[in-house]
Amino acid sequence: MDIGKLLAPGTVAIVGASEKEGFGGDTCRNVISYGNTDKVYYVNPKRDTLFGKKCFSTLSDIPGPVDLVVLCTPQKLVEPLLKEAAAKGVGGAVVYASGYSETGTAEGKKAEEDLKGLCTELDIALMGPNCAGYMNYVDQVAAFAFISAKRDRKGSVGLISQSGQLCLSFMDHPAMRFSYCISAGNCSVVTMEDYFQYLIDDVHTKVIGLYLEGVTHPEKFTDALRSAAQKRKPVVILKAGRSEKGSRVAASHTGSLSGADAIYDAIFKKFGVIRANDAEELLATTQLFATMRAIPEKTGLASINLSGGETGICADMGEMAGLDYPDFNDKTLARLKELLPSYASPANPLDTTATISYDADTYAEVLQTVMDDPKVGMVVIGYTLLHEIADPCIHYMAQGIEKVVQNNRSKPMAMLPFFENSRNPEYEARLAAAGVPVLPPPAYGFAALRHLMDFVAYSPEEHTLELAIPSAAVKKGRRTLSEQQSAAILRDYNIPTPEGNVGKTADDAVKIAGTVGYPVVMKIASADIAHKSDIGGVELQLTDETAVRKAFDRIMSNGATHAPQAAIDGVLVQRMLSPGLEVIIGVNNDPQFGPAVLVGLGGVFVEIFKDTVLIPAPFSKEEALRMLSGLKALPLFQGYRGKAELDIDALADAVANVSRLAAEQRDVIAELDINPVFVYEKGQGVCSADALVVTSD
Amino acid sequence: MDIGKLLAPGTVAIVGASEKEGFGGDTCRNVISYGNTDKVYYVNPKRDTLFGKKCFSTLSDIPGPVDLVVLCTPQKLVEPLLKEAAAKGVGGAVVYASGYSETGTAEGKKAEEDLKGLCTELDIALMGPNCAGYMNYVDQVAAFAFISAKRDRKGSVGLISQSGQLCLSFMDHPAMRFSYCISAGNCSVVTMEDYFQYLIDDVHTKVIGLYLEGVTHPEKFTDALRSAAQKRKPVVILKAGRSEKGSRVAASHTGSLSGADAIYDAIFKKFGVIRANDAEELLATTQLFATMRAIPEKTGLASINLSGGETGICADMGEMAGLDYPDFNDKTLARLKELLPSYASPANPLDTTATISYDADTYAEVLQTVMDDPKVGMVVIGYTLLHEIADPCIHYMAQGIEKVVQNNRSKPMAMLPFFENSRNPEYEARLAAAGVPVLPPPAYGFAALRHLMDFVAYSPEEHTLELAIPSAAVKKGRRTLSEQQSAAILRDYNIPTPEGNVGKTADDAVKIAGTVGYPVVMKIASADIAHKSDIGGVELQLTDETAVRKAFDRIMSNGATHAPQAAIDGVLVQRMLSPGLEVIIGVNNDPQFGPAVLVGLGGVFVEIFKDTVLIPAPFSKEEALRMLSGLKALPLFQGYRGKAELDIDALADAVANVSRLAAEQRDVIAELDINPVFVYEKGQGVCSADALVVTSD
Repeated sequence: MDIGKLLAPGTVAIVGASEKEGFGGDTCRNVISYGNTDKVYYVNPKRDTLFGKKCFSTLSDIPGPVDLVVLCTPQKLVEPLLKEAAAKGVGGAVVYASGYSETGTAEGKKAEEDLKGLCTELDIALMGPNCAGYMNYVDQVAAFAFISAKRDRKGSVGLISQSGQLCLSFMDHPAMRFSYCISAGNCSVVTMEDYFQYLIDDVHTKVIGLYLEGVTHPEKFTDALRSAAQKRKPVVILKAGRSEKGSRVAASHTGSLSGADAIYDAIFKKFGVIRANDAEELLATTQLFATMRAIPEKTGLASINLSGGETGICADMGEMAGLDYPDFNDKTLARLKELLPSYASPANPLDTTATISYDADTYAEVLQTVMDDPKVGMVVIGYTLLHEIADPCIHYMAQGIEKVVQNNRSKPMAMLPFFENSRNPEYEARLAAAGVPVLPPPAYGFAALRHLMDFVAYSPEEHTLELAIPSAAVKKGRRTLSEQQSAAILRDYNIPTPEGNVGKTADDAVKIAGTVGYPVVMKIASADIAHKSDIGGVELQLTDETAVRKAFDRIMSNGATHAPQAAIDGVLVQRMLSPGLEVIIGVNNDPQFGPAVLVGLGGVFVEIFKDTVLIPAPFSKEEALRMLSGLKALPLFQGYRGKAELDIDALADAVANVSRLAAEQRDVIAELDINPVFVYEKGQGVCSADALVVTSD
Repeated sequence: MDIGKLLAPGTVAIVGASEKEGFGGDTCRNVISYGNTDKVYYVNPKRDTLFGKKCFSTLSDIPGPVDLVVLCTPQKLVEPLLKEAAAKGVGGAVVYASGYSETGTAEGKKAEEDLKGLCTELDIALMGPNCAGYMNYVDQVAAFAFISAKRDRKGSVGLISQSGQLCLSFMDHPAMRFSYCISAGNCSVVTMEDYFQYLIDDVHTKVIGLYLEGVTHPEKFTDALRSAAQKRKPVVILKAGRSEKGSRVAASHTGSLSGADAIYDAIFKKFGVIRANDAEELLATTQLFATMRAIPEKTGLASINLSGGETGICADMGEMAGLDYPDFNDKTLARLKELLPSYASPANPLDTTATISYDADTYAEVLQTVMDDPKVGMVVIGYTLLHEIADPCIHYMAQGIEKVVQNNRSKPMAMLPFFENSRNPEYEARLAAAGVPVLPPPAYGFAALRHLMDFVAYSPEEHTLELAIPSAAVKKGRRTLSEQQSAAILRDYNIPTPEGNVGKTADDAVKIAGTVGYPVVMKIASADIAHKSDIGGVELQLTDETAVRKAFDRIMSNGATHAPQAAIDGVLVQRMLSPGLEVIIGVNNDPQFGPAVLVGLGGVFVEIFKDTVLIPAPFSKEEALRMLSGLKALPLFQGYRGKAELDIDALADAVANVSRLAAEQRDVIAELDINPVFVYEKGQGVCSADALVVTSD
């Protein structure tokens, strides 16, 4: 199957071409507006010509070879037309028709399965069904079912949308310029992941925007994310369903905190993918990446504005977005004092006052001065570009910007308006030509800048660019292991657990206690008893043989009385741990993306403040350390209020080992909870105080 | 001084009127575009006519009375002109000239003081200096120095801006319609608070937008906030300086957490003021209030959209903004199932599918069905209105909306686009005429809706609409009281403190211990020793007379050795408190707005998670209870994990008593910290374990 025949065909046949309104007519009108009509054949048995050009009765009548067919016909004609197309050597097809799996009916699903089978058999790369098609602005291929206002849209944003309506809305936005716009539809043959990989490999696409409803091929998706990260090609994803309450099924802590949506956040972070909150943010971010000539070399932002009010908004909104405005150095400040009016107070963010915006040379000098500051990676010019220009200063500002861009000491710039408004198309185009994007107002503009700076700060080398995707055959049943079984698995992966063993008799228990050393704790050993304390199955702080014997008898008796159905292996005798800072480590095995490791402080920190971090397995100790530094509670590890520094290094080792365990055992382990692991003072390590493993069975 | 002569004058003289570019010419052009030229006199000694109308040489030459003069002249002419104006009975003046306090020079400050003195003497209500003037669209008075694109701007948003640039940008926005637009300038005579009160009282102003850099008359500001709250007139404030690090001086916990900006948040919450994060959010929110015909009766929002992708964005962004999408009831769902295509799945947010948007009657029926749901207070229609309409569905949707508005069961509606775009002016005006605002895209649109719903949920009756503004004479010195002095003040306000007293001898100490009952704690009694434990000045859990005697000697000896300079009153002997949940209560006395009370759980909850709430004093116990319910840590009071419910009622009493104390003693108490107060099980009350009062001295 050759996706190139679908997305970059040499010749195209539009079947159901028409001059009327509707898919057929609108596709033809798009061809005339955006396509290369020399490469296009119209097919309609009822017409001899269309739009002044020859129209063929059937596909077979077309004299030369055809790469792509665009089927503007109802569902019932799709299969016969595909067969006819295949006979003619066609390798790609766009199918607008609906009536397939999106109906939710058995009939629809069957029709889609049949279509998929047919395309595989015919070796046809099919887009859709139930799609709006695509535009390839680079090669002037128009295979799109809806009309939008005519204008030049050729650019470098590659867009894939799992919603036709949103795809059209993106295209409708005046500031957007695309390489490809793909309304992927049901993705039954060529999948969203295939388009994604195609755009990652496409040299005309500088940045990819993806409206994602769900992933159906996790391996392919992961491969695409990895290659994008390694190529440093920015990917901006709007993933639907942030507000879905995630998997309600998982009863454990981990399950409830690392639900379906959280795993996407964690994967995106791992692969350096930018997650947009809504469509406008996706648009602003892709436009920013596409328009700039280069990615900033550092994250420091200089903000320059014409008024104090606007400077204040940039300070507040920029800080709220987590952006970094480094202080200018003395040289920069001294030069700004020379350039600006006496009543200006140079600082970052900078209020230049409006005066200098009426002098292109001074404006250019101010820009260059700010750029020359070594901490500055990019300059954001706060200015509300109106649709109807009322003030001539933009003329001088644009000249100044262009002057700076022409020299070879320029750094990236963007313009940030304070109001949503009709941006003046002439100046927007002129600034874009200079590599200066005009952003939307601050809530979106600063979000886009923050995404840019996250991209600048991301290094693919610092991340294990893998997921431990489970095999399809993983069983859905669940079996809870006993504490000693769980501990044994942890020990296999060098995760410290307390010394101990199960004794079947009081004598055994005494022997074990003697080996591990007093004081000991004793717990009933049974995979069937989840809440051991509730039945009197746990005794702590046992300091001698007599205590151990009595405890053994009480525990066994309580077990027999309160859990008569449970299979009891005996009593687990463990060295009693000294208390440390309580941390929980959990693993939840996502059916699509495999295990992710969640870490947080125990108790109220997790339950009330939701102070946790999540990374998909596998990952290194270095990644675990970075992960831990994302906890709000981090100061508690760092020598809080005069207390000793804690062994965060040993915790990172344990967390990384859990990730290795979870990744290697991804087809076996469904859930894992260490709650708590005690973290001791620096050099003293960590120890799992209680661990629970649930296997697939 | 009559502010009406300034803002709603019968006649206006423009001094320095001109046909050239600049203040004089632009003011005249604004008069011609927006003003009533019959009420305006031009004054310029060099011209006989201007714009085809008679021009007077001097103010004195004008035959009839003049209410307002607009001085478009340089600074040096301002004072003589004001004197001439006063002689003519002028009561208001707009002064554009700069060169006053905004220069930051002694000369400029002196000039402003002189100007202020002169206006007071002449009884002239002066706007400015260093302002851009104002537009009164209601009475067609134009006294504004900058030109913007001509269009009808008459509406019901009253805008006051302490930045001329932002004022102009607000006016430039195509969707905005104003009663007044005021660029207030330096506010040396008529103050920001005066304009604010004027607009609150103005019947043509439905909603007030205020860009605020600072308050100079806290009493007047508070009075205005109170009257707006009582009149239920929405006030939207963009307060600059959110990112300023607040008062760095205050060393105590409270000080560092309730800095300058936090007090504004707390005051705004008390008076039901909406705080916008930036100018676009202010605009969106005022436009929403101004355009809707009525305020929703309840906060439940129904979201209806034409596609699944857009419905998903509304679900996610609405939930992130904290909005409430109540589930539709069975009747609503059943009716929607009848109205919508079979493949639609009725829910809130609702994807109607695009089909129904091409049929005005069905669209109206769907709207009405959703509105009839008893939990719905407002309907938000997700639809990207483009500048160039490409799809006719908006025509049918608008018809449907109008149909619903015409019946008497309509509820408020707004349209929410998904992209920043050039809104089609025809449809925007048509929808506005039906009381349906078109919002900006989701990040701003949902923020505006959230503000609206906060306004709906706010009841002025539930708040003590007062601030305890300190007198100007409060001393800046600080004196720290001893623990027993501090406790005495708390006891005066019924805030529980441990029983105890200061003993000067060991015998005294034993006697006190006998009275309060064992066990006791003993602490060195000295206002000069801040960290008593550090010098061995605290002993806990003393259970008998011998222990008390020994402790007394050790403490006094440690005091003499380690704090030889301190004045030591003896040893404080207190009944040892049983431990409870540790809460801190703090008071920071803002020099402008007086004391505010901060409450949070002690330790890491305050320090790491910043989980605190702040209300300006005074307030009632009911307000304290609502305040406490804003803590993330609230579950810890409510019987957390099987523990007993805590005495939140007693805590609310204590917090309200602290607020009364702080308000009554606002000129005396600079800071107060109770750290911690122990909260016991329900019915067992609370007790301050350690309190520190700092007075002004």
